[in-house]
Amino acid sequence: MSQKETYENPDLKKERQNCPFNKEEITNLLDGGKEKTAERKQLENYILSDEQLKDAVPMEYLSHADKYAEELRKACLLMHKLENSPAGQVPTLRALMGAGLGSAVLKEGNPLALHYVMFIPALMGQGTIDQQAKWLAKAYNLNIIGTYAQTELGHGTFLRGLETTATYDPNTQEFVLESPSLTAYKWWPGSLGKTANYAVVMAQLYTKGKCEGTHPFMVQLRDEETHEPLPGIVIGEIGPKLGMNTNDNGYLGFEKFRIPRDQLLMKHSQVLEDGTYVKPTNSKLSYATMVFVRVVVCQDVTTNLRKAVTIATRYSCVRRQSELKPGDREPQVMDYQAQQNKLLPPLAATFAFQLASDHLWNLYNTANNNIEQGDLELLPDLHGLSCALKALCSSEGANFVEVCRQSCGGHGYMACSNFPRIYGQVTAAETYEGENTVLWLQVARYLVKTRKEQTGGLSVKYLIGEEKGPKTVDTTLEGIVHLYRRTAVGLVDVAIAELEKSGRKGEAPHDAWNHAAVYLIKAAQAHARLFVVESFVNSLKVGNLSAPVRTVLSQLCELFIIYWLLERSGELFFVRQFIKKRLVTVEFQVRTLLYVKLLAAIRPQAVNLVDSFDLRDEILASPLGCWDGNVYQRLFDEAAKSPLNQSSVHESFHKYLKPLLKSNL
Amino acid sequence: MSQKETYENPDLKKERQNCPFNKEEITNLLDGGKEKTAERKQLENYILSDEQLKDAVPMEYLSHADKYAEELRKACLLMHKLENSPAGQVPTLRALMGAGLGSAVLKEGNPLALHYVMFIPALMGQGTIDQQAKWLAKAYNLNIIGTYAQTELGHGTFLRGLETTATYDPNTQEFVLESPSLTAYKWWPGSLGKTANYAVVMAQLYTKGKCEGTHPFMVQLRDEETHEPLPGIVIGEIGPKLGMNTNDNGYLGFEKFRIPRDQLLMKHSQVLEDGTYVKPTNSKLSYATMVFVRVVVCQDVTTNLRKAVTIATRYSCVRRQSELKPGDREPQVMDYQAQQNKLLPPLAATFAFQLASDHLWNLYNTANNNIEQGDLELLPDLHGLSCALKALCSSEGANFVEVCRQSCGGHGYMACSNFPRIYGQVTAAETYEGENTVLWLQVARYLVKTRKEQTGGLSVKYLIGEEKGPKTVDTTLEGIVHLYRRTAVGLVDVAIAELEKSGRKGEAPHDAWNHAAVYLIKAAQAHARLFVVESFVNSLKVGNLSAPVRTVLSQLCELFIIYWLLERSGELFFVRQFIKKRLVTVEFQVRTLLYVKLLAAIRPQAVNLVDSFDLRDEILASPLGCWDGNVYQRLFDEAAKSPLNQSSVHESFHKYLKPLLKSNL
Repeated sequence: MSQKETYENPDLKKERQNCPFNKEEITNLLDGGKEKTAERKQLENYILSDEQLKDAVPMEYLSHADKYAEELRKACLLMHKLENSPAGQVPTLRALMGAGLGSAVLKEGNPLALHYVMFIPALMGQGTIDQQAKWLAKAYNLNIIGTYAQTELGHGTFLRGLETTATYDPNTQEFVLESPSLTAYKWWPGSLGKTANYAVVMAQLYTKGKCEGTHPFMVQLRDEETHEPLPGIVIGEIGPKLGMNTNDNGYLGFEKFRIPRDQLLMKHSQVLEDGTYVKPTNSKLSYATMVFVRVVVCQDVTTNLRKAVTIATRYSCVRRQSELKPGDREPQVMDYQAQQNKLLPPLAATFAFQLASDHLWNLYNTANNNIEQGDLELLPDLHGLSCALKALCSSEGANFVEVCRQSCGGHGYMACSNFPRIYGQVTAAETYEGENTVLWLQVARYLVKTRKEQTGGLSVKYLIGEEKGPKTVDTTLEGIVHLYRRTAVGLVDVAIAELEKSGRKGEAPHDAWNHAAVYLIKAAQAHARLFVVESFVNSLKVGNLSAPVRTVLSQLCELFIIYWLLERSGELFFVRQFIKKRLVTVEFQVRTLLYVKLLAAIRPQAVNLVDSFDLRDEILASPLGCWDGNVYQRLFDEAAKSPLNQSSVHESFHKYLKPLLKSNL
Repeated sequence: MSQKETYENPDLKKERQNCPFNKEEITNLLDGGKEKTAERKQLENYILSDEQLKDAVPMEYLSHADKYAEELRKACLLMHKLENSPAGQVPTLRALMGAGLGSAVLKEGNPLALHYVMFIPALMGQGTIDQQAKWLAKAYNLNIIGTYAQTELGHGTFLRGLETTATYDPNTQEFVLESPSLTAYKWWPGSLGKTANYAVVMAQLYTKGKCEGTHPFMVQLRDEETHEPLPGIVIGEIGPKLGMNTNDNGYLGFEKFRIPRDQLLMKHSQVLEDGTYVKPTNSKLSYATMVFVRVVVCQDVTTNLRKAVTIATRYSCVRRQSELKPGDREPQVMDYQAQQNKLLPPLAATFAFQLASDHLWNLYNTANNNIEQGDLELLPDLHGLSCALKALCSSEGANFVEVCRQSCGGHGYMACSNFPRIYGQVTAAETYEGENTVLWLQVARYLVKTRKEQTGGLSVKYLIGEEKGPKTVDTTLEGIVHLYRRTAVGLVDVAIAELEKSGRKGEAPHDAWNHAAVYLIKAAQAHARLFVVESFVNSLKVGNLSAPVRTVLSQLCELFIIYWLLERSGELFFVRQFIKKRLVTVEFQVRTLLYVKLLAAIRPQAVNLVDSFDLRDEILASPLGCWDGNVYQRLFDEAAKSPLNQSSVHESFHKYLKPLLKSNL
């Protein structure tokens, strides 16, 4: 371990003795191979050894404006460093932007992130070769900095609801961009407030008096020299948020702002000089980018969850509290079953989410290869799967992060614990890139369609035809997965029955759909859970895992699968045949016992498992979670940084408090 | 409505038409009577009309130190105003400190709050008449400002674990206070960092070489004139937190700090001049303060939840999004069943929590009357109940606040929505005044004891003797409450069976207890839920409610009770006889249908119900939740306050961004 220092908390030292598995094997598994681990470590060393990239003062002490300026300083420096990275090293921007290394430098969002994550991909995905030639080199060289402006003050996930218009004027061969109302103002795009000077803007395209729907336009926002907003551009920052406060999310309004015709990104559809609109040939292609972004969201959530679990697990082994055996020393908090019940399921979840994301990533690559050969068949299924996994990882991930925070008691509530910031990042993912409830209902639509029409993609094959698999209690992992499968099928059937009942009552299909939402969401969630547990179980079957690693991962897999089963067991009630066969009662009693046994079995390896994540102290950024376990000294050192502690009496005493103390109320 | 202004959003206007019930009747019910409502309104007018008590700039834009100074300014001003409040008005400090009016002025915690909430009550509860005479007048006049210092860096809920020592020196008749280690430093007390000059300090009392356990000491921390820490006192602020950042939580260490013998608060136990220790006569009495504080916590959580529900409900009726009927205008978000499923349970919960808190408050007052007559019998039961209700309200309340926030999509993530701050307050209550998991296990101990010994207080009578009540499906509210009761009994029995099984395997009782924690916590939670639903159902039976109010409250009651039943339905599996009789399957199907119907029935009254909370815009402090529904204009106005928007180009552009744009990477 690179973090090894002279001090090591004796309790943590003991936890690390006699580790039955090779931690590095798990590290490599999570990184995607030995070489990837080495690459990551090299890049971490390069970036994290730079004193100029460290915070002089923790971010939380600064004012809103100073936070932005300080992060911009580091973001710009990071871009310079990127160009000079060690030979042979291919620093991926993802690594520098994301929840891992990126967060060690830019703790609450990078003001340049959207440039790489949205602006350049939009240009590549939607721009013609000519347009790419014109803009892409400038973007790569950071001669321009862009963002992606879609959502509006009054309009979110529903693309068709956007109000911003781009009306073609054939006389000048220009588009006129206009925000017809306050609710039409672009609102939320990252980097838009103060940083970006360009944006890809989504607007309703009007030509020849007809609206052709939303299209992407390349728009210059600010002068390249002075950075002043161009005439007709109204731009500003939207203010502080729950998290990501070093990213200048912004607003943007257009007052008859004109751009040349060739700034409509025309890879898929065109407007000719005379204003003739040429339709896109295939709309499925836009799915591919969305799938990619959602896999990235799942990975970021998982990395953040690993941080939370590492911090809480190490702290719980250092912290001693209360009394187990009367008269004995206060025990490690981790020795309480109640604490294991809090922390081991999220620990297992980090593996479940990672393996499911990896699985989705592989499917995405296969689909991409097919696309190159003109075969788009896999895309809709992949789209459904990515919606489901994004919604599940972000919502469960956010809950787990909060469980980790609360498991650390009061100290978890300190900003320096890093939990509040981690939560701010993870819970944001519940809303962006498709609000979760909207996604669940999209997934449900796909499930219902598949079940009724008995045709659908790979991920929904289990909804087609008769149920297979054991009908009796089966205590293998496969048996439990089958229980998940039957629950998902059962819930889809219940939802369909509701829809049909409403139909018979004469409700219009859209009303029936709305009135079945509670059922439909449950069905979609059961489907997503099935995918995650199947991925977990299947990934343990393949690969060259050593016996000790396989053992501990199997325990985690079993724990996780049973945990979810017990948590969501109410849903089994929906599936009549379970009750009829009294299958569940037996299952439930057996499973609960097994769950409690697994908690005890995994407990001794908790610290070794989080050590395997190999998250450097700079990435954890928490006195509670450092490798050395020197929790209390580090908490104290953090407090010493408070500007309020730079003098023994704060100036406000003389101004406000002394007059009060001396007055006769 | 006092907030009525010229503009009213047309959708909200429509929601408010033809309200079938008298909103004021509900307002009065929640306030505790017509007169209480009038009093509250008068006080709100008095305080909120003061321009000097308003924020010049929203708190989130300030640096950490400036936040403190600005809130201290307002807190001191508020104390002055308090003395000059309108004649006939008895301004309760609670109203000025709490989640209602208090939060409109001091948004993230009052630096003087602990003085009133903990310091003065500790002095009154633990000080002798002489000690009260000496300190109380000065405290009331704010000539001294105190706090209460109990938790330490390494020690939380477990009082016996505290390390700070107070050793009696009979030669000088002084106590010597000492922090024997870093983990012994007091850590967390509010107001301790910079504000307080006195504290009640909990320390291990040593006299005649023997430790007599933790006792409270009155300790001067700072010079009354200069405010400098006294020699031997190490004091500072602990830094930023998830919330409550305008309260200067602090740390405190003692270096052989001497105080006179008579600063041990000696109402219950004494140390005589020669060092003889005199034991307290009754330890139960300390329960009473804890019960009081926990009722206050429940009330604050409920007020905060009311704010969250009001903001989310109004916004959901203003916000229009996506498509229900193809071709129609975007519908109000509230018309989606998925949104009703998010917001109506927390709306119902505000009533459930309030009525349960009221019930507990009445029991507390009865118990207090008995105490005056020397009868302490009710106290242990009341203590158990207050633990259970505090843990339940805070944990469910925090979850509900997050559901409300997320129901507002991206805009809920803005700091100005006020959700992040509300969450910061509510989730803190999950940890302070007894960490919830610790409380659940305390409650469980009481339940197990009652069930096994067949004797216990009022709240656990249902655990004594045979189960009563219907054994078949009963669709009345009473019938459902009985289902809750049977679940609670069943879970207690399952936990006891686990304990006994471990006992037979030869486990020591403390190990058996730890190994049954998962079951024990479930049992305690079921008990707490039973109390809440019983209180809700019972409070609808009595009182002079008008028919329309009774109707809507009954719907909310039914919705809430079914909601929890469905949410926690997995726990019914624990209770074998439910499955045996196939009771649950039927119940479950029927209930789900009923639940969905209730969502539709309550939906039209959602805005009228939150209007009935009568929360002024200043208290809601959210552009999303204002009475007039002018959401988008208000969001825009909020953003205009950002210091980053005071110039079109931020100075950081010239320093960092321009060199990057112009460099050739």
